[in-house]
Amino acid sequence: MIIQKTENSRLSTFDPNNFSFGNTFSDHMIICEYEDGKWGDVKLVPYGPLLFTPAMMGVNYGQACFEGMKAYKDNDGQVFLFRPEKNFERINKSAKRLAMPEVTEEMFLDGLKALVDTDRNWIPQGEGMSLYIRPLIFATEEALKARVANKYMFAIVATPAKSYYADPVSVKISDHYSRAASGGVGSAKAAGNYAASFYPTQLAMEEGYDQIIWTDDATHEYFEESGTMNVFVRINDTIYTPPTSEKILDGVTRDSFIQLANKRGLDIRVEPIAVQAVLDAHKNGTLKEVWGVGTAVVTTVFKALGHKGEKLQLPSLPDDESYAALLKSDLVNLQNNISEDPFGWRVLVKKDVLETA
Amino acid sequence: MIIQKTENSRLSTFDPNNFSFGNTFSDHMIICEYEDGKWGDVKLVPYGPLLFTPAMMGVNYGQACFEGMKAYKDNDGQVFLFRPEKNFERINKSAKRLAMPEVTEEMFLDGLKALVDTDRNWIPQGEGMSLYIRPLIFATEEALKARVANKYMFAIVATPAKSYYADPVSVKISDHYSRAASGGVGSAKAAGNYAASFYPTQLAMEEGYDQIIWTDDATHEYFEESGTMNVFVRINDTIYTPPTSEKILDGVTRDSFIQLANKRGLDIRVEPIAVQAVLDAHKNGTLKEVWGVGTAVVTTVFKALGHKGEKLQLPSLPDDESYAALLKSDLVNLQNNISEDPFGWRVLVKKDVLETA
Repeated sequence: MIIQKTENSRLSTFDPNNFSFGNTFSDHMIICEYEDGKWGDVKLVPYGPLLFTPAMMGVNYGQACFEGMKAYKDNDGQVFLFRPEKNFERINKSAKRLAMPEVTEEMFLDGLKALVDTDRNWIPQGEGMSLYIRPLIFATEEALKARVANKYMFAIVATPAKSYYADPVSVKISDHYSRAASGGVGSAKAAGNYAASFYPTQLAMEEGYDQIIWTDDATHEYFEESGTMNVFVRINDTIYTPPTSEKILDGVTRDSFIQLANKRGLDIRVEPIAVQAVLDAHKNGTLKEVWGVGTAVVTTVFKALGHKGEKLQLPSLPDDESYAALLKSDLVNLQNNISEDPFGWRVLVKKDVLETA
Repeated sequence: MIIQKTENSRLSTFDPNNFSFGNTFSDHMIICEYEDGKWGDVKLVPYGPLLFTPAMMGVNYGQACFEGMKAYKDNDGQVFLFRPEKNFERINKSAKRLAMPEVTEEMFLDGLKALVDTDRNWIPQGEGMSLYIRPLIFATEEALKARVANKYMFAIVATPAKSYYADPVSVKISDHYSRAASGGVGSAKAAGNYAASFYPTQLAMEEGYDQIIWTDDATHEYFEESGTMNVFVRINDTIYTPPTSEKILDGVTRDSFIQLANKRGLDIRVEPIAVQAVLDAHKNGTLKEVWGVGTAVVTTVFKALGHKGEKLQLPSLPDDESYAALLKSDLVNLQNNISEDPFGWRVLVKKDVLETA
């Protein structure tokens, strides 16, 4: 790895009690360029702009995919990643579906650890605090031809993140717009999937909703995802979440929730969720909770579901009766080294990784 | 418009008889930045790199759309654009679907004319020659949050293009992969649509095909597009092309072919094309031609259709019996100012647009 540390740290300008998520960047970034059929050296460099023309294929033809993950600092100042091998596997699954070169485990994990270790002072401490980390791969070749690019960049950038808390939101069950096609790229964390979701979400907001529950594009009869999260539904004391597929992202938080629910002995079923079954459960009073899960906020609880012009209010459960709150607490405690880790999910980021390598 | 012409023209390095399409860029480009809810000044500047970080939202969340169009030089050296107002309308349709700011007609058309006029010496002359022009809009804000961006760039870059001729190709009728979801972004020229098509196309190539005929994702029973082109089928003497929809791009070449066919009194029908109807026509000998149309090559004729493991050979018609060749010739002659233009499609690019404005 080539190391070029900044001589102008911006750390003194960073107030962990007052920063905005997503556009405060840590001092460094990882970059690695792909050319002539192979990846070059991984470099740790100061975060900042690089030179790209508007003919860059990444913005012209959308060959771009990413991951979202976090590093957590415990009470003793130790820093942990959470299941980073899952993100490594998934970025390569996304890359493959978009005909992009896969990254090596060494590039991905060593790059990640080097960045997190070097910028460990950027990780805010305390409940809900973390460093949000964004690995991505995008086509950098300059060419105006709709074909697979020959040049790419793998990069990792990071931004401090705070507070898991998200207000309960109202979500609209989509009856027209869709996130993914059968035989499409829904299971990839493809850049284009996000842009495609913004306009339908804006329309839902104009109707008084915060997010969309995406349904299958052919019939709109089955839940797929919610916003940019995987979706869970609790009917009586049974939790349902749809099976992953080529249309549904294999979320790390989703998988963790399933394993944590199983560990608690909860009845959790990975099964298709029919819109009608949810509506029926609402009608007969057995619909207890609906929520989304993802890396950024962990859990967003839904307070209302919109369906074809009707807004169905959901129960507001106290935390000690909510499975969403229970599983979120289990996950957050594990991530922050407050509880045991029987799964081996936490990965300690050693100090001075670069010096001792 | 702010004009900053290059002091180091690369024109002397450009050999119109020997260049590669798509990565030879003309001397200048148009750029215009969007911030605080409005577009800034349109600038004509030397083509070259700009500063973007890997946190640029365009490559993270895929808010990016483009147009493909051409400028033609006639025998007298006059330069023409072809139906640029169609591309203007479509880029805004794409922008709207991706929740991006629309561009003004002035920005788009004046920028286009200024670039083409300034770089008119980059337009190769002769049959099949042109300047391929790429207007695009992409999100430039640096932020790691899956939301609508606040900063964008509108840009126009250009590359000399040659030869309309494309060998007849074999295409696979897709029975699994899809280009567009119902309620998705198929009708937008969204960057992500292209990346999504590359891997399925690679698989088709491994089976001995060159492109894919995309079918509807729910049943794969109807033609949608072919590769990055609109598709036409001729059965006996009737031409069919699918109606545009939210899944099918409203192609300028497609629309021009329909109008040119009507002008010739050909029987052309804008109707859904069932895969089974094409297979039946092949079986009973009435399937005469299948072809794709688009700005880049105008027409690509298909010599074989693959369907569920079978490769069906198509007739090879001489040019004087081929509707594809006839309509292509009509279009190319009109674009190159060889024939009359009863439609008003040609737009002359005046000399020294900038000086006389």
